Amino acid sequence: MYKKKYVIGLDYGTLSGRAVVAEADTGTILSQAVKEYPHGVMDCELPCGVRLGGDWALEHPQDYLDVLKETVPAAVRQAEVSPEDVIGLAIDFTASTILPIDQDGTPLCLLPEFEDRPHAYVKLWKHHAAQPEADEINDLLTRRGEIDLPRYGGKISSELMLPKALQILREDPEIYERADQILEAGDWLTFLLTGSRRRSASMAGYKGMWMEDEGYPGHDFLKALDPRLETYVEDKLSTDICPMGGRIGVINEAWAETLGLLPGTAVGASIIDSHVGLPGCGITKPGEMMLILGTSSVQLALSETPYSGDGVCGAVKGGIMPGYYALESGLAGVGDIFGWFVDHCVPASYKEAAKAEGCGLHEYLTRLAGNLVPGESGLLALDWWNGNKTPFVSVDLSGMLVGCTLATRPEEIYRALIEATGFGTRLIMETFERTVPVDEIRACGGIAEKNPMLMQIFADIANREIKVSASDQTAALGAAMYAAVAAGSERGGYDSIFDAAGAMNRMKEESYRPIPEHAAVYESLYREYCRLKDYFGKENPVMNNLKALRQRKR
Amino acid sequence: MYKKKYVIGLDYGTLSGRAVVAEADTGTILSQAVKEYPHGVMDCELPCGVRLGGDWALEHPQDYLDVLKETVPAAVRQAEVSPEDVIGLAIDFTASTILPIDQDGTPLCLLPEFEDRPHAYVKLWKHHAAQPEADEINDLLTRRGEIDLPRYGGKISSELMLPKALQILREDPEIYERADQILEAGDWLTFLLTGSRRRSASMAGYKGMWMEDEGYPGHDFLKALDPRLETYVEDKLSTDICPMGGRIGVINEAWAETLGLLPGTAVGASIIDSHVGLPGCGITKPGEMMLILGTSSVQLALSETPYSGDGVCGAVKGGIMPGYYALESGLAGVGDIFGWFVDHCVPASYKEAAKAEGCGLHEYLTRLAGNLVPGESGLLALDWWNGNKTPFVSVDLSGMLVGCTLATRPEEIYRALIEATGFGTRLIMETFERTVPVDEIRACGGIAEKNPMLMQIFADIANREIKVSASDQTAALGAAMYAAVAAGSERGGYDSIFDAAGAMNRMKEESYRPIPEHAAVYESLYREYCRLKDYFGKENPVMNNLKALRQRKR
Repeated sequence: MYKKKYVIGLDYGTLSGRAVVAEADTGTILSQAVKEYPHGVMDCELPCGVRLGGDWALEHPQDYLDVLKETVPAAVRQAEVSPEDVIGLAIDFTASTILPIDQDGTPLCLLPEFEDRPHAYVKLWKHHAAQPEADEINDLLTRRGEIDLPRYGGKISSELMLPKALQILREDPEIYERADQILEAGDWLTFLLTGSRRRSASMAGYKGMWMEDEGYPGHDFLKALDPRLETYVEDKLSTDICPMGGRIGVINEAWAETLGLLPGTAVGASIIDSHVGLPGCGITKPGEMMLILGTSSVQLALSETPYSGDGVCGAVKGGIMPGYYALESGLAGVGDIFGWFVDHCVPASYKEAAKAEGCGLHEYLTRLAGNLVPGESGLLALDWWNGNKTPFVSVDLSGMLVGCTLATRPEEIYRALIEATGFGTRLIMETFERTVPVDEIRACGGIAEKNPMLMQIFADIANREIKVSASDQTAALGAAMYAAVAAGSERGGYDSIFDAAGAMNRMKEESYRPIPEHAAVYESLYREYCRLKDYFGKENPVMNNLKALRQRKR
Repeated sequence: MYKKKYVIGLDYGTLSGRAVVAEADTGTILSQAVKEYPHGVMDCELPCGVRLGGDWALEHPQDYLDVLKETVPAAVRQAEVSPEDVIGLAIDFTASTILPIDQDGTPLCLLPEFEDRPHAYVKLWKHHAAQPEADEINDLLTRRGEIDLPRYGGKISSELMLPKALQILREDPEIYERADQILEAGDWLTFLLTGSRRRSASMAGYKGMWMEDEGYPGHDFLKALDPRLETYVEDKLSTDICPMGGRIGVINEAWAETLGLLPGTAVGASIIDSHVGLPGCGITKPGEMMLILGTSSVQLALSETPYSGDGVCGAVKGGIMPGYYALESGLAGVGDIFGWFVDHCVPASYKEAAKAEGCGLHEYLTRLAGNLVPGESGLLALDWWNGNKTPFVSVDLSGMLVGCTLATRPEEIYRALIEATGFGTRLIMETFERTVPVDEIRACGGIAEKNPMLMQIFADIANREIKVSASDQTAALGAAMYAAVAAGSERGGYDSIFDAAGAMNRMKEESYRPIPEHAAVYESLYREYCRLKDYFGKENPVMNNLKALRQRKR
């Protein structure tokens, strides 16, 4: 008799982590358990009160352990499945989210001697304080004529691993010295679970400048950056890279007991949280673009040819699905921008009206904004409140709003901000299309599920049909797919991520189709957007100048 | 024995009118009485419910009569002066604020047959619905090669009288036909009080395209605009123009009784409300610039040579003070923009915090914004929420804000808006300086009196000392100066406005002096402002395109 098998997907986001238990054959999610990180994002001070500088964003690794220990047993219990039928576990994690650990795998910040040292903590993906180091790396690469190599893609971001590691070395060399490894938090968890130092090819390729054929950057370059960095790869990293869909190892006895699973349960290579949505949305071939819409956004598309530049990373072959390059970019702010607006720019009268209607401000504004037609507000924004990734890769660029009059109302600005993120999304799509056509968009994430008004605007602006994931746990489901591949078909899983994605994805039947007359207005607004994008991105350095003035005052 | 004499200044603003009684020798204001216009600005519908189109702004002439009847007796009574010692009265009024009246002086809208006809009402200065007519006039003048004549100054605004009159003719020819006169509301009141059809040279020159040597535009031009307009001047206007400081006539018996004054009291020519601040601030020579800061702003400077263009009107010799040209421009929005921001963009939490501190939102934001230093917000705005006057003369231009991040706070935007109006003010000052140097600024108006934080920013941005009027009724005081000149020295007044302004002005002792390190930062921000001004004003038509899209949807 056929016996159902189950897989666990663990999804570590910016503010919380969750575990789901899914059926390996259908992808149906049976249970989920969520835990918010008790420490949240630490951007002002450490728990002990030590103040952090501007642009810092740290997390506490104990939070990740707590998620593991609490959510996995809870989800398994809730799903009422037997541990012996749980065939695999895989983790997706934000990246590059790195930490220094000692030989035992203990994060340095958990050692009492280092609890007051900011660099001993986890540097979250959006830690931007390594911008000087990123600038320095870019300068060096430019001088060496290597900046346009596919590995670097024209400009490296301060969010990558190397600038962050270099910041540790520069600002707290003792921490750097004491670290037995500096690694991605996702890799740290699989190291703990299995004892294996195999690393995710996804993390290494996208965030660590690693390439399948050439490995990590060479000694010569690293030495030029800083003599102490010459043996960075040998000293702090691991060169045992596990291809995607591969297995890091199996859960050891201690952790099996802690999690209520059987020792020997397969553990997949960790995946970048934004990447799991690709199989999670059932994308298995070029022509489809994934779009995750949350606080920020991610766009991914499979391609047979590599592309890197303009903020698009697409030089890692097999970084998500074997055999394909995956073009990746996204907006640095989406929901974050709407949240900023709701928190700081909406008057008391709207709050009261929303309350009277029994809804939240987002919902209230969405309803009002939905009554407007394209162009009606007379507003246009550049969506760079959190910087720009494509095409300029700059955290110094900032948001811009034009078209304000005394008649401008909050819901009009709210809609303009939504439209701006739609234009930014189209811009990335068109950048992808230099390499691979985009015939259809498949979306997931909180906003995609909850905001039909926004999704219709995105469809109208992109002039593409958008399908939406039926699961509100697309990322965790994607991780579960990798868990199923790590287990393999002989244990009730799959032999490839293509098979897993084809069988386990869950999309809604209805989709968003462009409304021709809206698409026509947005076509002309998009041209305006692009002109302003070029102006503020490269013709007039005003945003950089304003940022420089702002920082001078800090 | 010398007997004190008194003068009455009547100041008609956008929302209210007020009367002051001042001592003719010292300018000391003894009393004032204010009345808000019961109908306010009618921009949505007429009292009878007839809806108005976009960009309309009407007022009700009965409101002006009510002000006259209520405030003059109240102020005289309160001042405890004898009517026989009141030697003169003069009125300042917004302009071009026009209305059609019948032969008796009755506004057509007060006739029952026309009460439902929008064109029978007063078109307020900021009625912008005659933009198509203004465009048409500009086109015609351009074709005729006359657009750069001093009379027209490179571009005429929809706020002038002719576009408004032409709109009446085009959209409601019956009203045009029935009008015995179409005239400025200020001239209408002096006509009622005295029975004289003499018109203010100020109103005619600045708002009616009249010139001292050449009179009104000629038949040929008017006919080319519309054949029915050929005899517009003869049909609807008066060519009996009274120079500034002159006397229209004396109060007739009926109105003397109504107002509690003596028949024969001198009535001065009406003055544009924004112009009376010039003598009101004691400006009697070139080198000083007047700055009125209210919902919008006005800048005026005396010059020995004319200038017109870039939104500066300075072609009317003696339009304010005999012998001098007065350069005039201003921002289309100042307090209006801050008011918009406070009404629509400040969150409930700020409202509560302000309430807890027992102050209003403006005051609360001003305090927070005052804690910032120049450049700290990283924001920069173009102050065109209500269009731009200098240099582009366009109501199609709109507000722009750049530099927004997720860390941007309301008080930072508030300060950026204040700074934007400061940059706009400096831009006008520099435009004036092509003709006459500006060594000192003399300010009046609600904002100048109440917001030291803003005034310091303006001084820092302009890099000029700013003196502030000690009176909160500078306009009414200015009108009272003209009343004193209309009465003449033999009756206890003055023989020239220079004498009156010299004797009656009241400035505060303390002034705002530029802080060098702030001025330096603003110098560089002003350069950024100017670059953006040129970009959005003439290099990229995005604002016009957005406006066109907006209107298409109405």
